[in-house]
Amino acid sequence: MPHITLPESHPGIRGAMAFRPETARPLNDLVEVLLRAPNSLLPAERELIATYVSYLNDCHYCQSIHGAIAAAHLDGDEELVRRVNADFHYADISEKLKALLVIASKVQRGGKQVTAEDVERARSQGATDVEIHDAVLIAAAFCMYNRYVDGLGTVQPRDEAMYRERGKMVARDGYVSVSKTYLPAEPAAR
Amino acid sequence: MPHITLPESHPGIRGAMAFRPETARPLNDLVEVLLRAPNSLLPAERELIATYVSYLNDCHYCQSIHGAIAAAHLDGDEELVRRVNADFHYADISEKLKALLVIASKVQRGGKQVTAEDVERARSQGATDVEIHDAVLIAAAFCMYNRYVDGLGTVQPRDEAMYRERGKMVARDGYVSVSKTYLPAEPAAR
Repeated sequence: MPHITLPESHPGIRGAMAFRPETARPLNDLVEVLLRAPNSLLPAERELIATYVSYLNDCHYCQSIHGAIAAAHLDGDEELVRRVNADFHYADISEKLKALLVIASKVQRGGKQVTAEDVERARSQGATDVEIHDAVLIAAAFCMYNRYVDGLGTVQPRDEAMYRERGKMVARDGYVSVSKTYLPAEPAAR
Repeated sequence: MPHITLPESHPGIRGAMAFRPETARPLNDLVEVLLRAPNSLLPAERELIATYVSYLNDCHYCQSIHGAIAAAHLDGDEELVRRVNADFHYADISEKLKALLVIASKVQRGGKQVTAEDVERARSQGATDVEIHDAVLIAAAFCMYNRYVDGLGTVQPRDEAMYRERGKMVARDGYVSVSKTYLPAEPAAR
């Protein structure tokens, strides 16, 4: 049961966002620019980083929904998502993404865990400064989203089909667009 | 030395934000609504939560700047900021804020650490659902900001006077306003 009274119709972070639209807007804007905006890293690659960090933080809702979004971007390849979580070193992904996942896993434990060697390895596999920046911030941001979702005790269904359906919708329409179904209309300007 | 090439003129998170204005905007919008927008929790109380979480995460830049902003909101009472970090249970703050700091410290370790008893204790001290929500999200957000600042190896000066001056400016003008000094002009609409 949630620690505070959240709208029952929306599980996970959506219930928390519907409860507090003022904070939901920047939270949605951030995930949209990090995981979906034009970027040399594919949406699938960025979703895999988000899913892996959520898996490390043991957040059921976030790892399920972002795993489903990643799979939707990967033509439904749920097995690849599972393999990245289980041991990405042996998954069929690029060496660059593996090096970025190493950085993300360090950030999950604490920002100071990232070493110059970790960054140098990513760079030697072709990662740009923006890609390294984004891997750090995606990992840091999911340390926030995961704590937000678990810290409020949100409802986190065990229904895989729900995540799969929703994952396809978010992959197709994006975070900000989908959030309009549960947030009040945005004011014209701030 | 930063792990990537950041603008040298801006320390801490400002260097990272100047490097990537696209993500800086939602990051600034989030901290503005969490720590500064109208709220039944005073800006000083919310800055103390942000400072304490940054202290627990051992992020020098964030604990210094938010401690300075908190002190600026408290008529310069830097001693109170130090006492909250050292042991808030014995600091001269409300029982409600102490109960919210307990919740924040649990979120810092992981969202699942928050118990129904922690929330009940805050509620019995007068905390509302919005205040409990905001304490959880402030703590979660600073687990992001701290990891972002440390994970990129940003420059974090040891100059207390710099933080004190900047703290006064942010307390007076706000995050979004001050960020305009180092971010490019915002597009008219998204």
